[in-house]
Amino acid sequence: MIVERRVMEIGDLPLAQGGRLNDVRLGYEAYGRLNAAGDNAVLICHPFPGNAHVAGRHAPDDALPGFWDALIGPGKAIDIEKFFVVAVDGLCNLNGRDGRTVAPGPDCRQGVDMALAFPKIAIRDLVESQRALLDKLGIGRLNAVAGPSMGSMQAFEWAVAHPGRVGRIVAALPVAIVDPYTSLMLHRWVRPIEAALGAGAGVDGLRVALVDAFAAVSVDAQGRGDLAGRFGDEPGRAITTVVAEASARANLCDPIAFLRLAEALRGFSLWHGHAAREGLDRLAAPVLLAPAATDELFPPSIAASIAAELRARGRNVGFFEIPGEGGHRDGVGPAAARMSAVLKAFIEAPP
Amino acid sequence: MIVERRVMEIGDLPLAQGGRLNDVRLGYEAYGRLNAAGDNAVLICHPFPGNAHVAGRHAPDDALPGFWDALIGPGKAIDIEKFFVVAVDGLCNLNGRDGRTVAPGPDCRQGVDMALAFPKIAIRDLVESQRALLDKLGIGRLNAVAGPSMGSMQAFEWAVAHPGRVGRIVAALPVAIVDPYTSLMLHRWVRPIEAALGAGAGVDGLRVALVDAFAAVSVDAQGRGDLAGRFGDEPGRAITTVVAEASARANLCDPIAFLRLAEALRGFSLWHGHAAREGLDRLAAPVLLAPAATDELFPPSIAASIAAELRARGRNVGFFEIPGEGGHRDGVGPAAARMSAVLKAFIEAPP
Repeated sequence: MIVERRVMEIGDLPLAQGGRLNDVRLGYEAYGRLNAAGDNAVLICHPFPGNAHVAGRHAPDDALPGFWDALIGPGKAIDIEKFFVVAVDGLCNLNGRDGRTVAPGPDCRQGVDMALAFPKIAIRDLVESQRALLDKLGIGRLNAVAGPSMGSMQAFEWAVAHPGRVGRIVAALPVAIVDPYTSLMLHRWVRPIEAALGAGAGVDGLRVALVDAFAAVSVDAQGRGDLAGRFGDEPGRAITTVVAEASARANLCDPIAFLRLAEALRGFSLWHGHAAREGLDRLAAPVLLAPAATDELFPPSIAASIAAELRARGRNVGFFEIPGEGGHRDGVGPAAARMSAVLKAFIEAPP
Repeated sequence: MIVERRVMEIGDLPLAQGGRLNDVRLGYEAYGRLNAAGDNAVLICHPFPGNAHVAGRHAPDDALPGFWDALIGPGKAIDIEKFFVVAVDGLCNLNGRDGRTVAPGPDCRQGVDMALAFPKIAIRDLVESQRALLDKLGIGRLNAVAGPSMGSMQAFEWAVAHPGRVGRIVAALPVAIVDPYTSLMLHRWVRPIEAALGAGAGVDGLRVALVDAFAAVSVDAQGRGDLAGRFGDEPGRAITTVVAEASARANLCDPIAFLRLAEALRGFSLWHGHAAREGLDRLAAPVLLAPAATDELFPPSIAASIAAELRARGRNVGFFEIPGEGGHRDGVGPAAARMSAVLKAFIEAPP
C-alpha cells in the first residue's frame, strides 16, 4: 500500500498549560473512505517519538512501512475497506523514525534559547490538535480512537475530554495514569537533555545528550528475552548496537522537541486538570486493553489495574496480552499483528 | 550490636586488567570468633555501592545498622555465636551509605585527571583483595561466601577462582553472567559520568552527573508496587524524593570511584578471563540462590536460568524467592530477613 503525507492548517491552538501555537499546520495521513453516514472513522494516535505514518509506504522502496502496518490496511484488523483511518503528526515535531513531520516544534538550529521558548505541551494538546483537524475533515463522532503507548494516553484522553465523539478506544501498551515507577523511568529519559542544558551545552552537546536519551528509551522498550536471543553472551554488542540505533534516531530529531514531548509523557494524568480518579469515573467508552507480556515500561500489571478500576465502575473492558519476548516493542511493528483477531472483533462490534 | 571498623595492610595487589595497586590498606569488619579448627568463617561481600559495614552499628545512635543486620548477629540466620563473619571494603573506595571506607580509590579533589588515572577494577580484583586479607587473618577455607547483588558476583567468582577455599555460596539477588538487558541497564548507570567527562566537566559538573547516576541506580533498584504504596497518585513526589536521596548519596562519593565500580559491574562475567560457560562448568560448590520476587534489575528469571544451568551439571542448588513489593531492595535491609529460615538451614548444613 502506497500512502501519502497530507497537510492541514488548523489555525491557532491554545495550550493546556498556557500559551498558544499560532497558524498551526499539521501533517496527517488518511486511508480508506469516509462513508455516507460519517460513522466509520478511526483515529490512530502514534507512540513516542513517531509521526502520522501509521501504515503503508510512502515509496515502494521504503525500508519499513508505518508502525501499525501489521494491523491497518485492506483486509487487516482495521480494514480500510470498511474504515476511514486518520492519523496526525504529534506536536513538538519530534520524530525518530523518518524525520518527516509538519507539526510545529522547537528547532535548536535557530539557537537553543529560541528552541527552549517553545511552550510546554500536554497530551491533551495533541488531542485538541487532532480534534481541530477532524473538524476540518468533517468528522464528528469517531468509531474508535486507537494507539499504542503514548497513543494509548491520547485515546484515554479523547474518551474523557470528548466522550460524545468517541465510540470506543483501543489502548495498546496502555497507561491511563503514570504511576511513580513509570514516572521515574520517564524522568530518566528527560535527564540527559536537562543535564546538558544545566551545564550550558550548545547544539552539539545537546545532540550527544539526545543519543543518551534515546538509548534510555530503547533500553526501557526492549525485552530481556528478545535481547538475549539477539546478543546472547555478547552484552557489549548489545550496548554498541543500542547506542548506534540511538545515534541514528538522534540525527533525525531536535533535542528540545524530545524534551518537550518526554515532559508531556512524564506529566500525563488522565483528563488534564482533573484528579486521575475523576478521569476514570468519566471514562465510559468500551475499552480494549492490550499490554505486551514482557513489557517492563508499561507492564501488564498496569493494564490489569486499569481493567480492575474500569470494571469496578461497570465498564465494558476487553483485555488481551500480546505474547512475545520483545518487551514494549511487541506493541508496534510486525509483532503487533498478534492482536489482530481480538482487535478486529472489538472494532467491528456494533456500537 | 556495636561493631568496629578495622584496617589491614595487604601489600601490593596486581589487577586483573593490568596495573597494580600499591601498599593496599583495606577496611574490614569481623564479628564472632574463629574456632580452633578454623572452619567456621563466613565471608560477606557487599552490594554496590556499600562497604564492609554488614551488621550492627558503629555507635548506639547510628540511624541504620549494616545492610544485612537482619541476617547477621547472635541468634540470627548467620549466627555469630557459631560463625566468624568477615566483610571487606570494596576497592574503588565508593560508598554511598556512610562515606567511610579505607580501601584505595580515585579522588577527584586531587584533580579529575589524577582520579581517572586510577586503574580499572574487575570483580575478580575484589575477590583477590579479600583473599589477601583472609590470608593475613589465617583463614584458609571458608564455610561460605555470601552476598547480595554485586556481592553475589563476588561469591560466584570466589567459587570458581578458588574452589578449594569455598564450602558453599549464598547468592542473593544473583547474577553470574551479565545478560544483554542488565548490561544495558548498567550502561545507563555509567553514562551520566561518561557524558560529563566527554563534555569536559570539572568536579562540580561530575557531582551533578553523579546525582543522575545514583538516581538511575535507585530507579532500577525500586519495586513498582512499593513505590505505588509510598507515593500513590503523586508521581512527582517520587521523583523529588529519589533525586534528594541520590543527591545525599552523591555527597558521600567520588564520581570516578562510582564510574570505576559501575564499569566493573557492567563488565562482570563469571571466572574472569574465561568464557562464561567454562565458569559455570567449574562452579561446583553448593549454591543458594535468593532472587527478590519483584526485582527488575536482576529478576528471578535470571536466578532461574542460573539454577537450570547448574542443575543440568548435577550441582546442589537451593532456590528461594524473597517475597515483597520492594524490587531489588528486598535483598538488603529489613526485608532480607524474609530469607532467614532458608539461609540458616543452608549455611548450617554439614559440608
